[in-house]
Amino acid sequence: MELRDFFPIWNQLASGQQETLIESTIRRAIPKGTLLHSGSMDCTGLLLVQHGQLRAYILSEEGREITLYRLLEGDICLFSASCMMRSIQFEVMIEAEKDTELWIIPADSYKSVMDQSAPLANFTNEVMAGRFSDVMWLLEQILWKRFDQRLAGFLLEESALEGTDVLKITHETIGSHLGNPREVVTRMLRYFQNEGLVKLARGTVEITNRAAMQKQYGT
Amino acid sequence: MELRDFFPIWNQLASGQQETLIESTIRRAIPKGTLLHSGSMDCTGLLLVQHGQLRAYILSEEGREITLYRLLEGDICLFSASCMMRSIQFEVMIEAEKDTELWIIPADSYKSVMDQSAPLANFTNEVMAGRFSDVMWLLEQILWKRFDQRLAGFLLEESALEGTDVLKITHETIGSHLGNPREVVTRMLRYFQNEGLVKLARGTVEITNRAAMQKQYGT
Repeated sequence: MELRDFFPIWNQLASGQQETLIESTIRRAIPKGTLLHSGSMDCTGLLLVQHGQLRAYILSEEGREITLYRLLEGDICLFSASCMMRSIQFEVMIEAEKDTELWIIPADSYKSVMDQSAPLANFTNEVMAGRFSDVMWLLEQILWKRFDQRLAGFLLEESALEGTDVLKITHETIGSHLGNPREVVTRMLRYFQNEGLVKLARGTVEITNRAAMQKQYGT
Repeated sequence: MELRDFFPIWNQLASGQQETLIESTIRRAIPKGTLLHSGSMDCTGLLLVQHGQLRAYILSEEGREITLYRLLEGDICLFSASCMMRSIQFEVMIEAEKDTELWIIPADSYKSVMDQSAPLANFTNEVMAGRFSDVMWLLEQILWKRFDQRLAGFLLEESALEGTDVLKITHETIGSHLGNPREVVTRMLRYFQNEGLVKLARGTVEITNRAAMQKQYGT
């Protein structure tokens, strides 16, 4: 993907604005497991994912985690440049879940163009609204869905992302995605195993009855 | 408040843009209890609160509610004009919690100016980021705070909004703010009463030990 492919409004930018973005953009290869941004770090800049997978999550004071959303190929991460907007009063962590190639647009370059360009500012609005929708979806899941439904939904989503029924993932990691302690995850996975939905082994969870799990998630 | 007072960037709008906003804006007096916007209704437009108090909340399929945030004098409600942005994929309800005077800017007028004006688009970005921060705060409360802390925090906030220690509010309504069933609220309020934090009577909750309640909320 070229830089322009990330911005549907690219042709509405003046050529000087396009140049500002192109000249300041840095390309990076990020190994899996790297923490790219944490709330307390400096303003990293916008992250544009070319290949790979990023995870945005929040962290409690006690070290518990919950995944807010994933960023895949073609996605733009705005909250790694949250210093651009003073009304963003929360701290998001971003880590590479897979080996990832991305472009970084420094926050000050991006902001200088966005301050002048209504198309870029409106596009940025849409990006933020998309993430806002992700978080509202998550909030509704936590409020109104039972844990078994959330866990089934998570396993199905992981399976789709990885393209396999055999997920290499620990109960601890699942807990970090869903915001629950490991013991709660283990208990529910054992219940799923008794119901014939999954098969557990050391470090893996295998989906053995996809249809039943989709039903579990839907109800 | 004048229309211009809602927009710190008013002077950066062209006079034609200012006129578009002024001419399309409608003034309304809304009685307490009115449902101003629900996800399924038409696109209401931006709401600018002159006096009074609005409540933004979401609703589960089973009819449970949780308050997302309040809008007070000088606040702008964006999600009542969510049709402006196609990336907003969630449904927010807005009701008047007090008799409220407001201005409504129709979504199409606002959007026509925002599409042309970088200052207005960037200001709108800040408004959305502020609401996003409110929702992230709420998400963290729900995930990491115990219910007693959330209830104590809610009572203190209500007391500050109403300017009194004697809150006229039912357990059912408190449940609708916090996303919990009435029984859960009643049980915790009785516990608070036993601890000497509140005094319960028909239709009222009186804060009797503010210092202890603040301590409860802080820990």
